[in-house]
Amino acid sequence: MGRNVYIENKPLEEALDLFNRCLTECGWLAPQFEEVDIMECLGRRTFHPVYARRSHPHYMASAMDGIAVKAASTYAASEVNPVNLDPDQVLMVDTGDYVPPQFDAVIMIEDVNMIGGQYQIIRAAVPWQQIRSVGEDMVEQDMIVPSRTLIGPYELASFKTASVERVPVIKRPVVAIIPTGTELVERGYDDMPPGEIVESNSRMLAALCEQWGGVALRHDIVIDDKELIRQAVVEMEPQADMIVICSGSSAGREDYTASIVEELGRLIVHGIATRPGKPAILGTINRKPVIGVPGYPVSAQLIFSLFAQPIIYARSGGEMPSPDTIQCQVARKLPSHAGVDEYVNVNVAKISDHFLAYPLNRGAGVTSMLVKSDGVLHIPRGSEGLDAGSPCTVALCRPRPVIENTLVCLGSHDLAIDVLIDILQKDHGIRMISTNVGSMGGIVSLSRGETHCAGLHLLDYESGDYNTSYLKKYLGRQKVMLVNLVNRDQGLVVQKGNPLEITGIEDLLRPEVRYINRQKGAGTRLLLDYLLQKKNIDNSGINGYNREEYSHLAVAASIKNNAGDAGMAIYASARILDLDFVPVETERYDLCILPDLFTGRQLDSLLTAINSNEFKRRMQSLGGYHLENTGLIIQDGVG
Amino acid sequence: MGRNVYIENKPLEEALDLFNRCLTECGWLAPQFEEVDIMECLGRRTFHPVYARRSHPHYMASAMDGIAVKAASTYAASEVNPVNLDPDQVLMVDTGDYVPPQFDAVIMIEDVNMIGGQYQIIRAAVPWQQIRSVGEDMVEQDMIVPSRTLIGPYELASFKTASVERVPVIKRPVVAIIPTGTELVERGYDDMPPGEIVESNSRMLAALCEQWGGVALRHDIVIDDKELIRQAVVEMEPQADMIVICSGSSAGREDYTASIVEELGRLIVHGIATRPGKPAILGTINRKPVIGVPGYPVSAQLIFSLFAQPIIYARSGGEMPSPDTIQCQVARKLPSHAGVDEYVNVNVAKISDHFLAYPLNRGAGVTSMLVKSDGVLHIPRGSEGLDAGSPCTVALCRPRPVIENTLVCLGSHDLAIDVLIDILQKDHGIRMISTNVGSMGGIVSLSRGETHCAGLHLLDYESGDYNTSYLKKYLGRQKVMLVNLVNRDQGLVVQKGNPLEITGIEDLLRPEVRYINRQKGAGTRLLLDYLLQKKNIDNSGINGYNREEYSHLAVAASIKNNAGDAGMAIYASARILDLDFVPVETERYDLCILPDLFTGRQLDSLLTAINSNEFKRRMQSLGGYHLENTGLIIQDGVG
Repeated sequence: MGRNVYIENKPLEEALDLFNRCLTECGWLAPQFEEVDIMECLGRRTFHPVYARRSHPHYMASAMDGIAVKAASTYAASEVNPVNLDPDQVLMVDTGDYVPPQFDAVIMIEDVNMIGGQYQIIRAAVPWQQIRSVGEDMVEQDMIVPSRTLIGPYELASFKTASVERVPVIKRPVVAIIPTGTELVERGYDDMPPGEIVESNSRMLAALCEQWGGVALRHDIVIDDKELIRQAVVEMEPQADMIVICSGSSAGREDYTASIVEELGRLIVHGIATRPGKPAILGTINRKPVIGVPGYPVSAQLIFSLFAQPIIYARSGGEMPSPDTIQCQVARKLPSHAGVDEYVNVNVAKISDHFLAYPLNRGAGVTSMLVKSDGVLHIPRGSEGLDAGSPCTVALCRPRPVIENTLVCLGSHDLAIDVLIDILQKDHGIRMISTNVGSMGGIVSLSRGETHCAGLHLLDYESGDYNTSYLKKYLGRQKVMLVNLVNRDQGLVVQKGNPLEITGIEDLLRPEVRYINRQKGAGTRLLLDYLLQKKNIDNSGINGYNREEYSHLAVAASIKNNAGDAGMAIYASARILDLDFVPVETERYDLCILPDLFTGRQLDSLLTAINSNEFKRRMQSLGGYHLENTGLIIQDGVG
Repeated sequence: MGRNVYIENKPLEEALDLFNRCLTECGWLAPQFEEVDIMECLGRRTFHPVYARRSHPHYMASAMDGIAVKAASTYAASEVNPVNLDPDQVLMVDTGDYVPPQFDAVIMIEDVNMIGGQYQIIRAAVPWQQIRSVGEDMVEQDMIVPSRTLIGPYELASFKTASVERVPVIKRPVVAIIPTGTELVERGYDDMPPGEIVESNSRMLAALCEQWGGVALRHDIVIDDKELIRQAVVEMEPQADMIVICSGSSAGREDYTASIVEELGRLIVHGIATRPGKPAILGTINRKPVIGVPGYPVSAQLIFSLFAQPIIYARSGGEMPSPDTIQCQVARKLPSHAGVDEYVNVNVAKISDHFLAYPLNRGAGVTSMLVKSDGVLHIPRGSEGLDAGSPCTVALCRPRPVIENTLVCLGSHDLAIDVLIDILQKDHGIRMISTNVGSMGGIVSLSRGETHCAGLHLLDYESGDYNTSYLKKYLGRQKVMLVNLVNRDQGLVVQKGNPLEITGIEDLLRPEVRYINRQKGAGTRLLLDYLLQKKNIDNSGINGYNREEYSHLAVAASIKNNAGDAGMAIYASARILDLDFVPVETERYDLCILPDLFTGRQLDSLLTAINSNEFKRRMQSLGGYHLENTGLIIQDGVG
């Protein structure tokens, strides 16, 4: 089958060391020189010092609007005995004008009276007063800046002023990025068939490369054909200082990177003991670094950051910024393989006086995790992970003030939470992050003080009321505020046109109906269980009861893609995806707030956002929401 | 004369308030919407939330290389009783491949044995194992990011993955920048006559504007002609969201900005009580902000930063970064007018355990000061300034780690110091800043512990030796290290071809010889005084003895520009500027180091740099330097 199943498991440190040693030996890491026009130097770093090519000013210049005089001609002047100068004894000058050698002082215009064509002076001028000497700012051949200086607006202006026209800068390393994969397309389009994916890794790596000081040179997508990939490498190599091949780095039937590197240059490492990232490739072709990054985006990002970032900075002459780190407690247990260096993306928020790190989904294929991430937690090789509550250090990728002003909302998810997040960020400058852990997960997080608030829709089977009895039971001693966000229609989302003619939950027992359930602890699952119980239906008769999705939209999307026929979800999810909906129940969806974890301004902002017309308007437009009680405070204080 | 001498002196706070109120009232500060192609969204900020247009994956996808199966077909499998599947019961899949509905599990290839055309399975598959569900990463219509999110590499990749092709972003405000001035030219050229200046302010402001999130639209230089400037404003206004007119903001004969704003729109403020910056103009034309900035670069930079920066950020939807501030002691007295808000650019360095702020030259025409500046010290209106040693707060414009690793060299200046600065930055990553305060100034700074080191060339009139007797006298108790940098030729720099036939210092008494002296405390001035004394020459007979320049190159540049005929300076300054040189003396130029103020690494680096071949080679190539004792430690310890 052409598979070469085994790749190495080289420890990270060793892989870094081998790669760096190789690049140091061939001198690749040393910055290279080029000269650019003054108008292209902004943001670059100087290779050599930059010297002034002309003094500034390069002539004796007036420092004021006034008249140039020979100082000696004014020595007799006083308020009592003014001196009157003839027009041929003075020269009218504005600030910056040339003062010719026959003059040696300037008198500001405010101190001069014009009387009958003569200039009346009432105070003696001191020689060289109000005259800027040659080179006051910069002298010809002065070193304006040394080597390795980042050129910003002020350096640019100084160079211009000193008549510098060509600037010696460090050449930005050119990084060729070659995306490979038969399944890849350049842009999304309607009715994209299953199996096709929009290529995005090369875009991400190119943007990172430019951020780090490199120039990205992206090749078009190459299909999984060894000869074509090889051709692409051979074509890019002469134009590039470094080559990155996206995906194909593993040892599957269509993974060609390793053998191409071996044939064209030197394969240094294949397989690195990191998670994510393991099937990565390091090598050189013509003494230039080559990196084979895995196809999963989070793996690609990690491998590129670990191996390309330091060498791009070194070659660009810049200091690689060391990330701000923060001491946190990890919010939940994080097991790890002792054999790998593991990098976990986390959210970070300040809860009362400490910072909590919330591990994000560790799936390497989850691009959205990189968008959500506030930083990275490194679990070094040899460690078997962290227990919940353990201290840990997070390398932040967001400014600390943003982290410090972040609200956490762990609980049931509703589109109302997204709308709130948007309004809070837009109108109040407050960031709220939300993870869907279901209503019961929200209750647990609230009870542990791990979240500022939680969306809840927990039906009390006995009273038929929502949420309050749960708060009493699980948060009895805590000060909480319960606010209604929306009432919403729950029901069965079904295929467009309802081809299976589903009319209620009894139909879920029909064997041809593929049901998609929600995860345990989700309020929507509890609602289904309650309805099944009321009707004495045994859930083991439902095809797919154990198949779980984590949100309303995920359930609806699966049905839309014909991976299922019915699922309990809110009306809006059916409407958004143009599916049919069989209403079952209208339920209350509240936000439970722990007011002691909020600053006054944060709480004001949150309540203002909930009560805003914009919130109601946007929810209304989604359909299936009832807003008559929105903002109503159902409970305030210990329950 | 067409002058309108009087402009206001509006307090800064009031001017800011008037301007902001006006822009708030007309709604100018609110971010504006535009939609851009996905490939142009990097670095922009979202106006609306961005929603996924397609789930990712949008089909059930294999999470591994392996075979897709119907889980039920494997239930009987065990190591003892393997199940053999026919080719029509399985589908070979690679990671990411589509798993069609007839399959519901994937078995990784490592767990499959091919035996006689059949697939041997030794463990039962669990339904949905190794299958990525639809929308595992993102579900169609998921909010990927809320409004006001800065789009970086990960957001870009997520948008691509979710088939987003058009991105709703905040429009970057377009800032028209109009440079005015008859004296201005676009580029420097050979033999630029006196009075001409290379235009640089608009380049600086354009670069700042882009840094802050705006788009700069620069007009060509307009000469000082009211009608032409007016036409430029009228031409730019429809394309711009904001207009900046460079220079012409005062009340001189050729200052037209105020009257143009008055005619075309509304003049809000003319004259603001800041230093620098006073003659600034604020107004609106067609409800768009107009700022008239003064012609002096430091004034232009201050006014643009105070008034344009916050409104560009507001309109771009970004949070204006608050600068890192640092508590310092001011190194020397800083008097200020009680009537103005004064902004002083300073260098900052850490000396033992505290930070010192060294005020830079306050001349508003000194572009190079902005290059040197590490931060700004604000002396509020009402204060009469700061005494030396007073505590003060500096808003940093460089990262704190750079400041913390900065060495200070206050003393006599020599080109050797520039070469050292360059080598230290390039090869050792250490920044050294130097200000020329003369040798005696260096001694004073050393004795106060205000500098890490100082260049000295102080001749002892009695012994004929250099530096050591001064160290004994002024730094008797301090631990110092004195290292020879160079020996250098001092002499009279004269016009090319020596037209006045100057042969020695006696010729300075000739009345037609315009001498240019160095400032008091400069070693070169002391050398002249010593030589004059030895020859019993009275300095009052020298034309220009009181005319002072602050460096060798400044003296030479004045002679080059025919502002003088002779000046004492080092040979290299004559050679660099292609002038003639009459040798007078070879002197020792040493570096005096206070080792206790250095870290071990810093001191090692400095001594390594001094002893490097590169240092010697570069000094040698300048001419007039003798390097036989370079690096020699003349004194080490208390003198």
